[in-house]
Amino acid sequence: LNRRACTAEPLDLARIRRQCDAALARFLDGKSQDLPGSTRTIDIAGVLRDYVLAGGKRIRPVVCVVGWHAAGGCGDPQPVLRAAAGLELFHAFALIHDDIMDSSDTRRGSPSAHRLLAALHAARPDSERLGTNTAILLGDLALVWSDEMLHTAGLTHRQLGDALPLLDAMRTEVVTGQYLDLLSGGQPSPDLDHTMTVIRHKTAKYTVERPLQLGAALAGADPDLLGTCSAYAVPLGEAFQLRDDLLGVFGDPHVTGKPVLDDLREGKATPLMALAVRRATAGQLRLLHELVGAADLDEHGAAEIRGVLEDTGARDTIEHMIDVRYRRSLDALAHAAFPDPAAEALRRIAASATGRTA
Amino acid sequence: LNRRACTAEPLDLARIRRQCDAALARFLDGKSQDLPGSTRTIDIAGVLRDYVLAGGKRIRPVVCVVGWHAAGGCGDPQPVLRAAAGLELFHAFALIHDDIMDSSDTRRGSPSAHRLLAALHAARPDSERLGTNTAILLGDLALVWSDEMLHTAGLTHRQLGDALPLLDAMRTEVVTGQYLDLLSGGQPSPDLDHTMTVIRHKTAKYTVERPLQLGAALAGADPDLLGTCSAYAVPLGEAFQLRDDLLGVFGDPHVTGKPVLDDLREGKATPLMALAVRRATAGQLRLLHELVGAADLDEHGAAEIRGVLEDTGARDTIEHMIDVRYRRSLDALAHAAFPDPAAEALRRIAASATGRTA
Repeated sequence: LNRRACTAEPLDLARIRRQCDAALARFLDGKSQDLPGSTRTIDIAGVLRDYVLAGGKRIRPVVCVVGWHAAGGCGDPQPVLRAAAGLELFHAFALIHDDIMDSSDTRRGSPSAHRLLAALHAARPDSERLGTNTAILLGDLALVWSDEMLHTAGLTHRQLGDALPLLDAMRTEVVTGQYLDLLSGGQPSPDLDHTMTVIRHKTAKYTVERPLQLGAALAGADPDLLGTCSAYAVPLGEAFQLRDDLLGVFGDPHVTGKPVLDDLREGKATPLMALAVRRATAGQLRLLHELVGAADLDEHGAAEIRGVLEDTGARDTIEHMIDVRYRRSLDALAHAAFPDPAAEALRRIAASATGRTA
Repeated sequence: LNRRACTAEPLDLARIRRQCDAALARFLDGKSQDLPGSTRTIDIAGVLRDYVLAGGKRIRPVVCVVGWHAAGGCGDPQPVLRAAAGLELFHAFALIHDDIMDSSDTRRGSPSAHRLLAALHAARPDSERLGTNTAILLGDLALVWSDEMLHTAGLTHRQLGDALPLLDAMRTEVVTGQYLDLLSGGQPSPDLDHTMTVIRHKTAKYTVERPLQLGAALAGADPDLLGTCSAYAVPLGEAFQLRDDLLGVFGDPHVTGKPVLDDLREGKATPLMALAVRRATAGQLRLLHELVGAADLDEHGAAEIRGVLEDTGARDTIEHMIDVRYRRSLDALAHAAFPDPAAEALRRIAASATGRTA
């Protein structure tokens, strides 16, 4: 028996996305006005606003709002939209600090935050260092303000009390996942289990499970329902990241907005690479050790690596793993008692997150 | 008419400090056990525990607990102690990121977090970079966990609802204060107003006002009482930072735990330096421009700078400014309706924060 939905209308995900963007713009515009100005400073709240609104799929806020509908959420959606939008500020925090740690120059086809800030302080002799330092602070602000958006969303005490433990768990998962990821870069490794652990912590829980649970909790979901959310979300989150890893190597940079050599130059430890290393011949392994993680890797070298990822069947296996997880996720959804509009939206989200080209 | 105190006993500040340390140790030991281990990782919760407990005066947690008593707080102090201890984790976040931005090698007489982490990863070829990157994450964790300590302190919904806006304000103040500070380093500047703005944001509100208000809010303080807290705390916080600036230049490094050349080499923009620049003769100004902010400044150069700070009367003026603020703070206290044990503790805190040698 399905929970009753407030509406039988399909959920308009593009509209939810626009509403979250509007909430973010309102919040950050307010911060621009509140902060102490100085002739020496730039409007960092404005910088964060432009950074956040310039791109991104808003998958976390959208999943959160759908989670609220899935758990039978009714009434004024504004507090939930604002709390959901706060997840995007948390994501901005993670991206900004991640790009500093990886020394990435671009994000979503635009300059990364530390590059952007270095350019804004270009008149100063220490602009490079200032770019990195102010980006650390910009990330800190994004984290702090993601909380403030939640705290000031107009939620009841009860809703806030239900939300905080989920967010606390999510934040520890993301940061410790980043830590595991940081320590596994460099040389290609055959440690498939380790890369799957990183994926689970850094992405699977954070991108789908926790946002969905957060939305459901805001509608008063009980532990059973939160478990149902996980059954759908964890395999989907893994599939999402496996697709992301494929796009990082085989994707079209004009579509992904991410230079296709970055992941390979960084020597990012992915299940894709771990599988290739496990199956490589001695010659292929030599090639991987030589090229993966090389800072000066060129397009020719990347083509050679791609050849190994295909010839070892690693790429096909990852496609298969995505497919298995996608089906597991849909299967969980079929057994969930979500209202039809929410279930239908979650099916669409699963299809686009696993089959996406960007 | 004074508010009724639960007890007429004097508050034992050293005991409060020990109780906060015990709460921190319990929380972080729990995190050490919860986090996913790996042969590649080190116990970062344990690293944070050792870092936090190695030193520090715990002024923020102590002030917070005294604030609770000042507002007539009664009953089980444990939730308040745990929430107060969370302020120390927030402080660890601020210090860790600050030391990365300043490239400081030491903190409280021990290695700074990024140096500590670089040493722990010394076996890896990229240990320097890994030290900085993992320190960014360690700071992020400290921030995230400071919240979690508060959320799980056992406060009522009402208490939490009263605490969050104060903490949100504090966190924005600290990060934007850091930002102002970052942009003002380098060359000595005569801009006294600017340095006082930085002090107010970065330290005065954060070190005394917000912790005191937080404690008072946890005891149900009304806006009037929170205003009384500010009247005591803002001048005291300014005096505290002015003393800190003096110690950074004239203090004994064996007592402060801070190399006495760091502030001068960094070219830290302080009211002390701004006053000296405003009053300097042409010759003194040349000397300041040449030596302040020079990365290779030696003890001889530092002695020359100290001479200018004294000869211009800048040092004496700062001592006078500390004294004025100390008296203003005590005056506010005399007019506050705090219970005697709390008022007496706040008098002791004011004396030690403005006259301290470390």
